[in-house]
Amino acid sequence: MSEKRKIRIALDAMGGDFAPLNEVQGAKLAYNLKKDAIDLEIILVGDEAKINNAIANTPDFNINYRIVHTTEVVTMEDDASAAIKKKKDSSLAVGVNLHKNGEAEAFCSAGNTGAVMSTGTILLGRINGVSRPTIGSFFPTSKDLPCLVVDVGANVDCKPRFLYEFAVMGSIYYSQIYNIKNPTIGLLNVGEEESKGNVAAYEANELLRNSNLNFIGNVEGRDILLGNSDIVICDGFIGNIVLKFAESVFSFLKIKFKAFADKGILNKLMMGIFQPILKNIFKDFDYQKYGGLPLLGVNGVVIIGHGKSTPVAIQNMILKAIEVVELDVNKKIEIALNS
Amino acid sequence: MSEKRKIRIALDAMGGDFAPLNEVQGAKLAYNLKKDAIDLEIILVGDEAKINNAIANTPDFNINYRIVHTTEVVTMEDDASAAIKKKKDSSLAVGVNLHKNGEAEAFCSAGNTGAVMSTGTILLGRINGVSRPTIGSFFPTSKDLPCLVVDVGANVDCKPRFLYEFAVMGSIYYSQIYNIKNPTIGLLNVGEEESKGNVAAYEANELLRNSNLNFIGNVEGRDILLGNSDIVICDGFIGNIVLKFAESVFSFLKIKFKAFADKGILNKLMMGIFQPILKNIFKDFDYQKYGGLPLLGVNGVVIIGHGKSTPVAIQNMILKAIEVVELDVNKKIEIALNS
Repeated sequence: MSEKRKIRIALDAMGGDFAPLNEVQGAKLAYNLKKDAIDLEIILVGDEAKINNAIANTPDFNINYRIVHTTEVVTMEDDASAAIKKKKDSSLAVGVNLHKNGEAEAFCSAGNTGAVMSTGTILLGRINGVSRPTIGSFFPTSKDLPCLVVDVGANVDCKPRFLYEFAVMGSIYYSQIYNIKNPTIGLLNVGEEESKGNVAAYEANELLRNSNLNFIGNVEGRDILLGNSDIVICDGFIGNIVLKFAESVFSFLKIKFKAFADKGILNKLMMGIFQPILKNIFKDFDYQKYGGLPLLGVNGVVIIGHGKSTPVAIQNMILKAIEVVELDVNKKIEIALNS
Repeated sequence: MSEKRKIRIALDAMGGDFAPLNEVQGAKLAYNLKKDAIDLEIILVGDEAKINNAIANTPDFNINYRIVHTTEVVTMEDDASAAIKKKKDSSLAVGVNLHKNGEAEAFCSAGNTGAVMSTGTILLGRINGVSRPTIGSFFPTSKDLPCLVVDVGANVDCKPRFLYEFAVMGSIYYSQIYNIKNPTIGLLNVGEEESKGNVAAYEANELLRNSNLNFIGNVEGRDILLGNSDIVICDGFIGNIVLKFAESVFSFLKIKFKAFADKGILNKLMMGIFQPILKNIFKDFDYQKYGGLPLLGVNGVVIIGHGKSTPVAIQNMILKAIEVVELDVNKKIEIALNS
């Protein structure tokens, strides 16, 4: 029997809106799922008393863990770039440093996205050749595989070169996760013609055309859900707006369906039958499924979760971290951007 | 009995993908709906033989109309800004000129959006105080009234001043159409804080804050469908991408529901029952309902329809033109931007 690989995940236990309880429960779920395959240790970073209290409220918490005590918490209200200077003993900064110092193979947090990104970038540094680390998000499509949209909020003002680098990083990440050799890449624009759009999009189109990526040209807003390219590149301003718009579609439909159900007993019955089907179709829109988004381009593995993460979402964030550690994405990005 | 108001609508009979048949049939539908309320004349602008052929294929075509013959057609492939120079006898240019010369109170076209916008702006000129004419689009919301997103593709690179003017024009248009005094205005961004987003958004926020518009601050992608502000302001690059993304949601769901139905006879039966409900809920996403979008900011009434317009969509485009003529939106925009 071959020895199991040891993987240590530093988890920001104070990150999400329901921390540390959901973090502790998610750690348990992830551990139980992976304990047979790998030698997993989860490092819970945060207020020791609160974490122990959460553990006491989590039945059957029999996992391989340790607690690293910290005294400060970066909140959603904290300024992203100032967080690292103002709160040196935050669960975020300490957790990233555990990873940096080789005490953990990855770091995960469902906390302030901007602060995780900024702290991760400052402490770990960028991969050689990367101008701006980025965050991509998976969108469901009407085809088999999801569409990876990069960037979804990390960089609001983007030079054409940044967009090109997002494409390189997205391509490597997608090809590793889905085992596809040359995923197709589209550049989000207002029309298919090269001449369309704003200045940055025009110049980025030229960079992508002349690269060895599998670039299919400009794509439009409709091409994301229809799965017309595996990866869609855009700046973080538009990517974030489209992501939040997409997340609101299910809420919108729920309100509409409820109004329909409230119109009569027959309607209510029909909606009762239909609800599970709808839920099933919309599960692909659920951030929980993907658990967390990797911060691509930093010298390390940092996974960012949703602030409202449930225990299952925390579990999936940890699983994502393990997956990225095993795939060794960073080395491939460095080679691609420096060859 | 008071005399009915005479309104003449110049209709680009060669505009849409199914022209001139859908245009002729839509004209008939609109005429029959409005003939008791107003003295309506529809001017069909385009190839006379083709129009007469479409009329011959339209039963009971008993409407008050005339044909203005033209020899050229601006296609979807034509360069928007060059169309007016290259095709002087197009149904588009001749139709806009009929409106300009006082032979029609409004012009409608389901043709090349960019060309309609560019030809309309060049021939009619801008309202005093308007830097860039704009196109807004209504999105359904989970509340009672739709959300007007301005701009949805007319202007891809926007100065903060343009965004402010979009807000003024959108506010007047919305208040007239829905009879609301001070509709709420949100600025599309990646966060609610004033400091968020790109440079243009930051400066536009300041302009809007210091205006007498009912500005509620930055809004995010999710706020559109949830109806958290009556109007959402953004540049045409992002507005167009969000519009096309939204239009694709129904196509995406249809494919997903079909896959569900194909899994078995019981599934098929359930989907059969549910289909009409879904259609009903998604009718608000249907461009046909709104028929056409006004080109706001030009000295005249120009309504732009969807290329794939059905006869009902053409009907609604004509009804929208009549509505805008009756509301006298332009005078109110001029006063607001010059006081």
